[in-house]
Amino acid sequence: MATQTYTVTGMTCSHCVNSVGTEIKQLPGVTDVEVDLATGQVTVTSEQPLDDAAVEAAVDEAGYAVAR
Amino acid sequence: MATQTYTVTGMTCSHCVNSVGTEIKQLPGVTDVEVDLATGQVTVTSEQPLDDAAVEAAVDEAGYAVAR
Repeated sequence: MATQTYTVTGMTCSHCVNSVGTEIKQLPGVTDVEVDLATGQVTVTSEQPLDDAAVEAAVDEAGYAVAR
Repeated sequence: MATQTYTVTGMTCSHCVNSVGTEIKQLPGVTDVEVDLATGQVTVTSEQPLDDAAVEAAVDEAGYAVAR
């Protein structure tokens, strides 16, 4: 199992949290996603390490951005 | 046709706008709902005048509040 943490900007409410979580959960191998609205911190657990670009693309698809 | 305007507080993003609009559209006789995120102004068009309490209940159901 692998755990990676990202900071996502632009989330303002629980709907935003759900959107980000739903998109990331669709990535292959992802088993859990935790999103903290207050900090923007997103913790992704997966069967194998994820490609950061894939996570960033999922966040972008939801309408938000990963802070670099 | 009747048009009534309300100010809804707590909406922070387009998901919130959609939630409020979806709940109000479920009220009998409602034909159109316009929600302005920046001002919180919600304009409801309906076949006959709506009971304010019904609109307030719909907004509450969505997780927001009508300002008095």
